[in-house]
Amino acid sequence: MLLLGTQRINELGHLEVGGCDTVDLAQKFGTPLYVLDEADFRGKMRAYRTAFEQRYPRNEIAYASKALLCMAVARLVVEEGFHMDVASAGELYTAVKSGFPGDRLVLHGNNKSQLEVSMALEMGVGRVVVDNLNELNMLEAEAAAKGTVAPILLRVTPGIDPHTHKFISTGQEDTKFGLNITTGAAMEGIKKALEFEHIKLIGVHCHVGSQLLDTEAHEGAINRMIGFMDDVRTQTGVVLDELNIGGGLGIRYLEEHNPPSIEDYAEVICNTLKAALDSHNFPYPKLLQEPGRSIIGEAGLTLYTIGAIKEVPIAEEPGIKVYATTNGGLSDNPRPQLYDAVYTPLLANRMNEPYDQQVTIAGKHCETDTLINNTLLPKPNTGDILAVLSTGAYNFAMASNYNRFRRPAMVLVNEGHADIIVERQNLDDLLWQDRIPERLKPNYE
Amino acid sequence: MLLLGTQRINELGHLEVGGCDTVDLAQKFGTPLYVLDEADFRGKMRAYRTAFEQRYPRNEIAYASKALLCMAVARLVVEEGFHMDVASAGELYTAVKSGFPGDRLVLHGNNKSQLEVSMALEMGVGRVVVDNLNELNMLEAEAAAKGTVAPILLRVTPGIDPHTHKFISTGQEDTKFGLNITTGAAMEGIKKALEFEHIKLIGVHCHVGSQLLDTEAHEGAINRMIGFMDDVRTQTGVVLDELNIGGGLGIRYLEEHNPPSIEDYAEVICNTLKAALDSHNFPYPKLLQEPGRSIIGEAGLTLYTIGAIKEVPIAEEPGIKVYATTNGGLSDNPRPQLYDAVYTPLLANRMNEPYDQQVTIAGKHCETDTLINNTLLPKPNTGDILAVLSTGAYNFAMASNYNRFRRPAMVLVNEGHADIIVERQNLDDLLWQDRIPERLKPNYE
Repeated sequence: MLLLGTQRINELGHLEVGGCDTVDLAQKFGTPLYVLDEADFRGKMRAYRTAFEQRYPRNEIAYASKALLCMAVARLVVEEGFHMDVASAGELYTAVKSGFPGDRLVLHGNNKSQLEVSMALEMGVGRVVVDNLNELNMLEAEAAAKGTVAPILLRVTPGIDPHTHKFISTGQEDTKFGLNITTGAAMEGIKKALEFEHIKLIGVHCHVGSQLLDTEAHEGAINRMIGFMDDVRTQTGVVLDELNIGGGLGIRYLEEHNPPSIEDYAEVICNTLKAALDSHNFPYPKLLQEPGRSIIGEAGLTLYTIGAIKEVPIAEEPGIKVYATTNGGLSDNPRPQLYDAVYTPLLANRMNEPYDQQVTIAGKHCETDTLINNTLLPKPNTGDILAVLSTGAYNFAMASNYNRFRRPAMVLVNEGHADIIVERQNLDDLLWQDRIPERLKPNYE
Repeated sequence: MLLLGTQRINELGHLEVGGCDTVDLAQKFGTPLYVLDEADFRGKMRAYRTAFEQRYPRNEIAYASKALLCMAVARLVVEEGFHMDVASAGELYTAVKSGFPGDRLVLHGNNKSQLEVSMALEMGVGRVVVDNLNELNMLEAEAAAKGTVAPILLRVTPGIDPHTHKFISTGQEDTKFGLNITTGAAMEGIKKALEFEHIKLIGVHCHVGSQLLDTEAHEGAINRMIGFMDDVRTQTGVVLDELNIGGGLGIRYLEEHNPPSIEDYAEVICNTLKAALDSHNFPYPKLLQEPGRSIIGEAGLTLYTIGAIKEVPIAEEPGIKVYATTNGGLSDNPRPQLYDAVYTPLLANRMNEPYDQQVTIAGKHCETDTLINNTLLPKPNTGDILAVLSTGAYNFAMASNYNRFRRPAMVLVNEGHADIIVERQNLDDLLWQDRIPERLKPNYE
């Protein structure tokens, strides 16, 4: 049985996480409920820090907030001394309102708006990762207008195909992201950045993809990037002092998933990097990274209550399919439909019973929002509490109000305590932005 | 060139809709912007009404609000005398707060909560479409507790495969929805419903799928349903008085899409229905329908501003791919990634220029959120206004705050006027539900 972070089976045969009985959490806070395991989240950040400090001391790690950002998560990232990636005005705003130090923020985005660039400069973000020439011009103008200098990394495309889902592949040549090394666009960007008075080029950035279960793509990208930095030195005389290799390390969604440990990952990354640097006789730059999913993914789980259960006939063996329906679905976790993502369910209130029933977990939206297809569970009953593991990344972050569902609450659990960090939306929240023009109002209003 | 509803090219060479210049709308309300063409929306409702009243006078049509619901849309549906489908507490609440008459509401859902059933009974909804036996028991108990009788339709699965995208196929045997005719589950549900004192069984409901470009699945379903109603008469002596055939008619996303007109659709549906009824010698029931997309889909368009434009090398001919990036993407329209949905773009500010450039339209999220792959446009420039057509259904409804993007505004346009019907979210709206536990607050707070 897959149990992650502080998850264990307690004396009542219930799933426990952060010292809290999940059946109690469901009762107290309602379902669907996002649950975040503070010890696991902090533990992953510490594991990253330790693994890299031991092997390549000149490094910083930024949490990629796109995976899951709310103000409490930003506070945990601050407390752990991490940097943080942001990629929109909303993520910047959340960071600043959480008291996140501006100089530890890294601004991303393939199409930054003037507002985003302007906010970033006012907050004194540590690095702007510039995606394209358009943006370089805008940034120079904004920085000049503000009488400041923008410290930047240039995002380049290493031309590495990571062989992950096409929507989360970003390192290949055919991508909307960054400037291409092969075509010369990246070198052109470097030279242009060096000409600008209000831009300080510190280094380069790449990102190869997400949920990678081996290190091959990262190794290829590092070699390509150091080669490029060497070319920059040759062509411009400038020795770039930072290399940001993005994120991408995978996590365990299923028991059989076997991504490299953070320790093993660090070993390969640092060895590859040092070997590449040594072979190019290149001074060691600062290494930056941006893990998101591999820090927070396994720390999250979602609790649902099982409602309708149905047996339907199918053509294939065994002729019958059992649907167990949750009280959530596509709106709180769109990943199964977006990426054919797979998940592990646990029957939180009957953990010790045999997982011997073939069940399909469906959502409650007006379409076929299958959460988990053909999985094993104890025979489910209406009212059971279902836990879906590894929902920390890209669940809350991608939640919608489809069918005008209210976005679930999120609790942070640690040592037997549970704190609300995101309130459940209420029915009036759904109407908050709705306006009825005068001419359409009911006569009695 | 595909132009829908009131769309036309004005004397400035701009796209106009509802008598409003879309370039002006973008300037006044900002982008991304959802624009809803009131005349087209109302026109589609009227076309449905007329087409069916002429051919099968005993009928009612409900707008399926899951496609797009805000309070102003509910008001338009009220004004047109339509019924409305709702499928959650949030949709019910929106309807009631808009002054929608309860008896014209139809409550759906494959896993209704007790709250939803209770709200529906208190509002006196016209029909509850009961999905399963679980719900039948809950509804009987709730209705008994409230001293009322719930008027219901029973949702049955006709066992028709509509050959559309698997996520929006619902009529086949293997589905989470409804009670199966083949297995006898549907007949069992009928008999159980007839036994209950606080439930009044009025008829049956089915839904075969969405975005159907021919009527074959509907024809099969109608024949199956009338056969089932005849079986019910034989086995129970009860003559069911309502048949709800759901929705499903497709719309034009591309110029080459050629769904049946509402008129042609009505012709086939009514002929098939009358023939089936006559052949079973069955008294004509009331015909109910639930179109959503085919009423509001083509009435919506989304305006974006083009930002970064990039040429990247690709292996295939012509060796170069042009990316034009919008200031929205996955968060305002997840359909390309969810369903491989296709869309038609127009360059709203230069409509008369030749559409001769191969362009890929990308979003601005932290993943490969391609909105439209390899389409034809005039050569795009940064700052151009891009209109994406047929975004009325399942765009706003499925919008997320991914990357903490603010949900766009929506304007209702008609005869040269534009009214805000959904305000753009502001940055503080993103933090509205966020809570920081005391122990994690910054020291200075």
